Amino acid sequence: MRRSLLFTKTTKNVPADETAKNAQLLIQAGYIHKEMAGVYAYMPLGLRVLENIKQIVRDEMNAIGGQELMMTTLQPRDIWEKTDRWDDKKVDNWFKTKLANGTELGVGLTHEEPIVDAVSGFATSHKDFPIYVYQIQSKFRNELRAKSGLLRGREFVMKDMYTFSRTQQEHEAVYERVVEAYHRVYKRLGLGASTYRTYADGGIFTPRFSDEFQTLSPIGEDTIYVDEAKRIAINHEIYSDENLAKLNLNKADLVEKKGVEVGNTFHLESKYTDALGMYYTDADGKQQPLIMGCYGIGVSRLVGMIAEHFSDENGLVWPDAVAPFKVYLARLGDSEQAIQQADNLYNYLTAQGVTVLYDDRDARPGQKFADAELMGMPYRIVVSDKTVASGTYELKRRTESESIHVSEDQLLENLSNTEE
Amino acid sequence: MRRSLLFTKTTKNVPADETAKNAQLLIQAGYIHKEMAGVYAYMPLGLRVLENIKQIVRDEMNAIGGQELMMTTLQPRDIWEKTDRWDDKKVDNWFKTKLANGTELGVGLTHEEPIVDAVSGFATSHKDFPIYVYQIQSKFRNELRAKSGLLRGREFVMKDMYTFSRTQQEHEAVYERVVEAYHRVYKRLGLGASTYRTYADGGIFTPRFSDEFQTLSPIGEDTIYVDEAKRIAINHEIYSDENLAKLNLNKADLVEKKGVEVGNTFHLESKYTDALGMYYTDADGKQQPLIMGCYGIGVSRLVGMIAEHFSDENGLVWPDAVAPFKVYLARLGDSEQAIQQADNLYNYLTAQGVTVLYDDRDARPGQKFADAELMGMPYRIVVSDKTVASGTYELKRRTESESIHVSEDQLLENLSNTEE
Repeated sequence: MRRSLLFTKTTKNVPADETAKNAQLLIQAGYIHKEMAGVYAYMPLGLRVLENIKQIVRDEMNAIGGQELMMTTLQPRDIWEKTDRWDDKKVDNWFKTKLANGTELGVGLTHEEPIVDAVSGFATSHKDFPIYVYQIQSKFRNELRAKSGLLRGREFVMKDMYTFSRTQQEHEAVYERVVEAYHRVYKRLGLGASTYRTYADGGIFTPRFSDEFQTLSPIGEDTIYVDEAKRIAINHEIYSDENLAKLNLNKADLVEKKGVEVGNTFHLESKYTDALGMYYTDADGKQQPLIMGCYGIGVSRLVGMIAEHFSDENGLVWPDAVAPFKVYLARLGDSEQAIQQADNLYNYLTAQGVTVLYDDRDARPGQKFADAELMGMPYRIVVSDKTVASGTYELKRRTESESIHVSEDQLLENLSNTEE
Repeated sequence: MRRSLLFTKTTKNVPADETAKNAQLLIQAGYIHKEMAGVYAYMPLGLRVLENIKQIVRDEMNAIGGQELMMTTLQPRDIWEKTDRWDDKKVDNWFKTKLANGTELGVGLTHEEPIVDAVSGFATSHKDFPIYVYQIQSKFRNELRAKSGLLRGREFVMKDMYTFSRTQQEHEAVYERVVEAYHRVYKRLGLGASTYRTYADGGIFTPRFSDEFQTLSPIGEDTIYVDEAKRIAINHEIYSDENLAKLNLNKADLVEKKGVEVGNTFHLESKYTDALGMYYTDADGKQQPLIMGCYGIGVSRLVGMIAEHFSDENGLVWPDAVAPFKVYLARLGDSEQAIQQADNLYNYLTAQGVTVLYDDRDARPGQKFADAELMGMPYRIVVSDKTVASGTYELKRRTESESIHVSEDQLLENLSNTEE
């Protein structure tokens, strides 16, 4: 895309009403627009990052047999009363609204109840299971305070998968398949090495632990204890001698760290299916309970988390897989030959399937360099009278401070070495 | 996709609480799930149709320089007060909700105000315009009654584009570019021949007419008068001798028809930009007003419209471009050779990029044929012991009643002749 056609701009001004660095940087670089505390609109570059993350998550959910759905934001009261999650005294962060006739409705906080309701209309026989369904959608949480930018929003994008299994044994296998898919997601996002499966409180529906996926980060709000050799961790909330023994973890092997929760997986037993009257008929014609799991990934939280985690003093630093464009092509000067070389390179790279943000504006070199750093594309290429004269391109990785001069062949070779 | 892995099923039962044929058929075929009147969740097949339509619309908006955004559902009151569209007495179909601290919020009805607010933070110079931005998102309308299935929902998916131009002349050119893109969208959706640009009331912001895009259909709720030779129409609402004269239309050339409104384009003049204080600075440093246009396409309405419009007594009949799968592959019997031929064909077609719903279930031929008709994929292929013996495949177009027997080469040739 030509920068001259992108309506957003960067700003040096740090937004005064944001304390979270992710929101500050994303606003300064023109990726998001703040609607109100905890509610952000995605501008074109921000939407590209969000969609890249969504697509990686979608790929991995499809690969394990996930079937994508789109549930509704407006929620009727009755199905939530069956699980006793309607009353504001029971669940205190619902947004509620009303039909013109006065009927109260919920504004999509989570979707266990409507998913069970929808799936139960189709799947009834033992032959229909196991089932994996998922959604990637905006959800709404009436948070009292919202000051962590995209890390904790009132309106945010989640991937939620829900599985239905016939037996505990089947559920275990299904659950571990999803966990493996989660590891692949974080690896592709560039967070593989720093993300740990972490035992956490299982909630009120099961005596078991749930799993969180915690990315080690100085900005983390969670305290976890990491066993590096086993590549496993335990959340501070359940850190006790009794639980360590249960989990076969040794205090001596654990190191305290800060983590950002980038996903979680829960055992729901048959709590929701029982409450909503969903069962399956076994081979003998007998009704049997269904075991559910639910599995979240905070997609918009990941935008903020990755933005903040990889940033440096000059701005954003996107991993290749989520960057809105792979290359920031800065043309310096407006001589005919510089314009021609830059235009040619832009067309060539685009034809090769390399995504390029082409800074074709009439602007000073310093401004283009500062923008390239702030906006954080993985590679910066400079074209100028000097590079035209030398027949090379100036290439810099966002994570490095020095640029190198390369031929066109070397350029492509460098760009095709995608990091993992 | 293998049918045995798809959790949805078909049903012969017409849902008793639906009067609209589109909702009846889409529910019977397992495409959607009714949450409440006017609020539908999209099951995997329905979501594929929705995404196909979205992608066609997105392609054509991008092709004219459209920049995609994602706006928020939660809306703060202040920007809507500036245009006097907050008060329920002024706009009576808002859903409203409240923050935990009691602050009232709107639930995304439309997005002119937040879009102007967001874009105005970036674009201020005459060099920044014209600008085309768009969103494809769920919107919410507190309809008193909702009984037309996906044609008029309380929660629905819209594409909305908004343009900003410096002069009326520039706006005219921009507006016509969007109109041309709309024609390309409807053509690709299989509705080109039956969709007419239709003069309609311009609303309160302009003395000019707006344009609707009306698809001729017996299910249409709008009455329009069509000039077939000019390929233009006029909405019944503004049908008067005075307007006909203004529009250079002759009563004698007009034929009364029923239409479904599948899109609209509006001239907003500088109503919103003025109210929200958005201007641009011209080359002389003077502040000037900005001229807006807004342009809607009802994406989820199109799912319902296409479903109902093309259906026949046996079920849905999807145009190629929007069908969830191009081919319904029905394997009859479970002999080893039939399974092998069907598996091979499924793998082969999939590898060729042809999307296939493979009915690999242990079910009677009659049930598979009935499902193929109800679910409406453009092509049905039958593999059975008979086709194995003859070395051919049985191919039927959903729109035809007779099947033909073809070789593998002929099969591919047939499948590659995509209709327009």
